[in-house]
Amino acid sequence: MSSSDIFIGETIGTAILILLGGGVCAAVTLKASKARNAGWLAIAFGWGFAVMTAVYISGPLSGAHLNPAVTVALAIKDGDWTNVPTYLGGQLLGAMIGATLVWVAYYGQFHAHLTDKEIVGGPGAQATAAKAVEAQEKGAGPVLGVFSTGPEVRNAVQNLATEIIGTVVLILAVLTQGLNDKGNGLGVLGGLITALVVVSIGLSLGGPTGYAINPARDLGPRIVHALLPLPNKGGSDWGYAWIPVVGPLIGGAIGAGIYNLAFA
Amino acid sequence: MSSSDIFIGETIGTAILILLGGGVCAAVTLKASKARNAGWLAIAFGWGFAVMTAVYISGPLSGAHLNPAVTVALAIKDGDWTNVPTYLGGQLLGAMIGATLVWVAYYGQFHAHLTDKEIVGGPGAQATAAKAVEAQEKGAGPVLGVFSTGPEVRNAVQNLATEIIGTVVLILAVLTQGLNDKGNGLGVLGGLITALVVVSIGLSLGGPTGYAINPARDLGPRIVHALLPLPNKGGSDWGYAWIPVVGPLIGGAIGAGIYNLAFA
Amino acid sequence: MSSSDIFIGETIGTAILILLGGGVCAAVTLKASKARNAGWLAIAFGWGFAVMTAVYISGPLSGAHLNPAVTVALAIKDGDWTNVPTYLGGQLLGAMIGATLVWVAYYGQFHAHLTDKEIVGGPGAQATAAKAVEAQEKGAGPVLGVFSTGPEVRNAVQNLATEIIGTVVLILAVLTQGLNDKGNGLGVLGGLITALVVVSIGLSLGGPTGYAINPARDLGPRIVHALLPLPNKGGSDWGYAWIPVVGPLIGGAIGAGIYNLAFA
Amino acid sequence: MSSSDIFIGETIGTAILILLGGGVCAAVTLKASKARNAGWLAIAFGWGFAVMTAVYISGPLSGAHLNPAVTVALAIKDGDWTNVPTYLGGQLLGAMIGATLVWVAYYGQFHAHLTDKEIVGGPGAQATAAKAVEAQEKGAGPVLGVFSTGPEVRNAVQNLATEIIGTVVLILAVLTQGLNDKGNGLGVLGGLITALVVVSIGLSLGGPTGYAINPARDLGPRIVHALLPLPNKGGSDWGYAWIPVVGPLIGGAIGAGIYNLAFA
Repeated sequence: MSSSDIFIGETIGTAILILLGGGVCAAVTLKASKARNAGWLAIAFGWGFAVMTAVYISGPLSGAHLNPAVTVALAIKDGDWTNVPTYLGGQLLGAMIGATLVWVAYYGQFHAHLTDKEIVGGPGAQATAAKAVEAQEKGAGPVLGVFSTGPEVRNAVQNLATEIIGTVVLILAVLTQGLNDKGNGLGVLGGLITALVVVSIGLSLGGPTGYAINPARDLGPRIVHALLPLPNKGGSDWGYAWIPVVGPLIGGAIGAGIYNLAFA
Repeated sequence: MSSSDIFIGETIGTAILILLGGGVCAAVTLKASKARNAGWLAIAFGWGFAVMTAVYISGPLSGAHLNPAVTVALAIKDGDWTNVPTYLGGQLLGAMIGATLVWVAYYGQFHAHLTDKEIVGGPGAQATAAKAVEAQEKGAGPVLGVFSTGPEVRNAVQNLATEIIGTVVLILAVLTQGLNDKGNGLGVLGGLITALVVVSIGLSLGGPTGYAINPARDLGPRIVHALLPLPNKGGSDWGYAWIPVVGPLIGGAIGAGIYNLAFA
Repeated sequence: MSSSDIFIGETIGTAILILLGGGVCAAVTLKASKARNAGWLAIAFGWGFAVMTAVYISGPLSGAHLNPAVTVALAIKDGDWTNVPTYLGGQLLGAMIGATLVWVAYYGQFHAHLTDKEIVGGPGAQATAAKAVEAQEKGAGPVLGVFSTGPEVRNAVQNLATEIIGTVVLILAVLTQGLNDKGNGLGVLGGLITALVVVSIGLSLGGPTGYAINPARDLGPRIVHALLPLPNKGGSDWGYAWIPVVGPLIGGAIGAGIYNLAFA
Repeated sequence: MSSSDIFIGETIGTAILILLGGGVCAAVTLKASKARNAGWLAIAFGWGFAVMTAVYISGPLSGAHLNPAVTVALAIKDGDWTNVPTYLGGQLLGAMIGATLVWVAYYGQFHAHLTDKEIVGGPGAQATAAKAVEAQEKGAGPVLGVFSTGPEVRNAVQNLATEIIGTVVLILAVLTQGLNDKGNGLGVLGGLITALVVVSIGLSLGGPTGYAINPARDLGPRIVHALLPLPNKGGSDWGYAWIPVVGPLIGGAIGAGIYNLAFA
C-alpha cells in the first residue's frame, strides 16, 4: 500500500466510523430525533455496524485500522513502525471530519436540544447550583456524549482498567482473524466478525465508561466539540480526556503481547 | 442482462423492499398491530433486512439496484447510461406495488388506526385547531409515515444535507463491495453486508429525516398514499417530497465521484 | 436422500424449530420468565434464529424444508411430488414434539401464569362476562399464543391475504437461494440468510396475524394445546385454524408460480 | 494440537467468554451502568457475541470448546477422552479469570449497587424479614446473577429438564456444523452460526433458568462470587449449583447420542 492510499483510506474510513458512531449517539439522545430513547442495544449495534461499514469501505485502500490501538498492536506484532505516523494522522483527521459531519446531519437536533426550556431551563433558570447540575445532566452532558466518552463512576484506576480490558479483547480478535500464523483467515467475513466483536464489547464492557477503545474515536471528536459554536454546550471534560487515549494504547500493547506469546 | 430481466427484477425487488420496509413502519406504528411500539431498532433492522431480502431475490435478474441513487452512481462510475431508464421505471413501479401490498396486508390496522376515537377524535372532535393538530400527529402522521419519510425539524438545507450524507455512505459501501478495481469482492456475502450498512445508516443517520436515501422508496409510496381510499388520511406532504428525491440523487453523484477519485 | 433420512431430518428439524419458536413466545409472554416483556424484536429474532438453528441441524439429513409451504413450492418448481408425504409427515410430527418440549421447558411458567390471581382472577372471579374476557386476554390468550397464531383484527379475507403475502416472500427467497437456474448459490450462507428473511417477515408482516407462514408450525402446536392438561387454558380457537394452513399453502403455490415465470 | 495449546486456548477463550457474558449481565443490571435496563435482548445478544468472540480468538489454539458439555459430547462422538481433563481444567480456570475481570471492569458499579440505600436499604434497614427479602431481590440477587444462573421457579426436575433441553440444541448445532460425516462444513462461518444458536437458546429457552448450558460458565464464576470481597453480597446459592453442572453434562451426552444415531 502506498502512503497516500493509507492516509486517504484511514481518513475516509475513520470519518465514516465517527459519522455513524457519533450519529447513533445523537439519534438516541437528542431531542427531535426519531430514534430518541432507542436504548443501549441501538448504541451497541450502531457502533458495531459503523465499524463494519467503515472497514468494508476503507479496507481496500489502507487495511482499515481506523484505530491507533490497532495500528500500534500491529506494529508491535510485526515489528514494523514505518507507516504508523501516516495511519495515526489519517485517523485523527478522519475522526474530526466525522464528528463535524454528525453536527451537520443533526444540526437542528443539537439546536433544539440545547435551547429547550425543559432540558436546559429558561432564561435565568440556572441561577441555582442544583438547576445548573440538572441542565448539565440533561442538556450539555448528552451533547458531549455524542462526541466523546465519559465515566459513570469517575475513578481513574477503574476507568483505565475498563478501557484496557475492552481494548485487549478487540486486539486479540483483530489479530487472530488475520491470515498469518495460527489466525482464522476469515477473508471477506472478517469485517463482519470484527463489527460483531465491537457490538459485544459495547454490550458487555461499555457500561462503565462508554467504551472508547480507540484514542482517535475519543480525542478527535472532543477537539471538534471544543471548537463548534453550540449554544449552552458546557465544557469538553478535558480532565478525563487522557484516559480514553492512554487506556486503549496500553490495551493495544498488552493485546499484541498476549498474541505474540500465545498465538504466534 | 436483458432489458426485460432488468425491468422484472427491479420491479419485483423494489416491490419486496417497499412491502417489507413500509410493512415494518405499519407494524410498529399502527393500532391493532402485534408489533406496535417495538421502537426504532425494529424499524432499522426491518428496513435493513427488507433490503437484504429484496437483494437476494432480485439480484440474479437485475443486479438488484432497487434505488435510483445506486443506478445513477453506477452509471457515473461506469460511464454507461444505457439501461438507466429501464432501472428507474422498474424501481418506481415496484415501489408503488409494494406500498399497495402494505395496504392489503395491514388493511384492518389502517382502518382501526384512522377511525379510532382516542387517536383521531370522535364526531366533531376536530372542531378546534389544537385537536386537529393532535389528530394529525397521532393519526394521519403515522399513516403517511408508513408510506414516505418526513423531517422532525423542517429545514430544507439540513434535511437535504442529511439525505445527501446518508446516501454517500450507502453508495461508497455498494461501490467498494463490487468485484472490480480495489473493491472487496464480497460475492454472496455482499447482500448481507449491504443490508447491515442500511441498518447502520438507519440507526445513525435516520433520526432527523427518516432516511429515504432512495428516491423511488419515497416517491412511489407517496403517490400511492395520495391515491388510496384511506379515511381521515390527511395530505401527502408534497411540499417535502422533492427533498428525498433530490438529496439521494446528489448523494449518489457525490458518492460516485469520491469513489472514482479515491478508489478506482 | 433416503426416505428415512428425510423423515428423521424433518422431524428433528421441525421439533427444534417449534421448540425455539414457541419457546421465545413463552419467554416473552409468560409470568415468571426472565425474558418477560422483551418485546416484538425478541419474538422476531427468536423465530428467525429458530429457523436458522433447525436448518443447519437438519439440512444434511433432509434439506431442511421444515414447512409444508416450502415442500409444496419445491414440488411445483421441480414437478416431483414423490417425497412430499414423507416431508409433511415429519413436519407435523416434529411440530407436535417441539410444542410438547416447550411445555416441559416452561412447565412452571405455564402453571404460574394460568393460576395467577392477578392474571386470571381468584376463585369465582370470572363470574361476570367482563372479567372472563379480561382473563382470556391476559391469561389463556398468551398461552394459546405460545402454541399457535391468531389475528389482531379478525377478518378472514385480510388474514388470509396477509399470510399469503408473507409466504410468497419466504418462498421467493428460498427458491432464489438455490443452486440451480438463476439462483444465488449461497451455499452454507443460505441458512443464515433464510433466517434473516424470516426475521424480516416477522418484523414487517407479523403485525396483523403473527405470521404463521407455515401450516405445520401452526396446526401441530394447536393440536398439542388442545391435548395438554393446562389449567384454565380456554379453547384452541379452531375457527381460525384453517387460515394459517390454507394461506401459506396458497402462498407457496403462488411463490413457485412467480419463480417459474420470472426466474427459471 | 498440543496439550499446552489446548490448555492456553481454553483458558483464554473461556476467560473472554465469561468476561463478556458476565459483563453484559453487569451492564444491564447494575446501578451506574450506561446499559442498565437494556433488557433481555441485550443479554441474549451479549452472551451470543461473547461466544463468537471467544470462539474466533481461541479456535486456532484449542478448537474452542469453552464448555465441558461440548468437550464431553465430542469425546462421546469420537470415542476419544485423551484430552478431556486438559480441556476441563482450562475451561474452569478461564471461567474464574473471566469472572474476576468482570469484577475489575465493573468495580465501581458493584460497589455503587451494593451500597445504594434505595437498593439494599440504609443502616439498620434490614431489621425486618420483608426488607431483607427486598434487599436480596434488588441488591444481592442481581449481583449473583452477574456470576451464575438461578431459576425463576425453583423446581429441580423442571430446572434440570430446561438445562438439558437447551444443551441438546447447542450440542446438535455444534456437532452438525463439523467437517465430518453429514455435517455442514461451515468453515469460518461456523463461529458466527454457533454464536447465533446461543442467541437463539437464550431468547427461547433462557426464561426459566437463565440458560447456563455450560457447567464451567456457572461453577467457575460462582466460586469467584464466593471468594470476592463484595459488600452485602449475600450467599452464592450453592443449593442450586449442581443443576447447571449436571444438566448440561446430561444434555451433552444426549446430544451426542442423538447425533450418533441420526447423523453419523
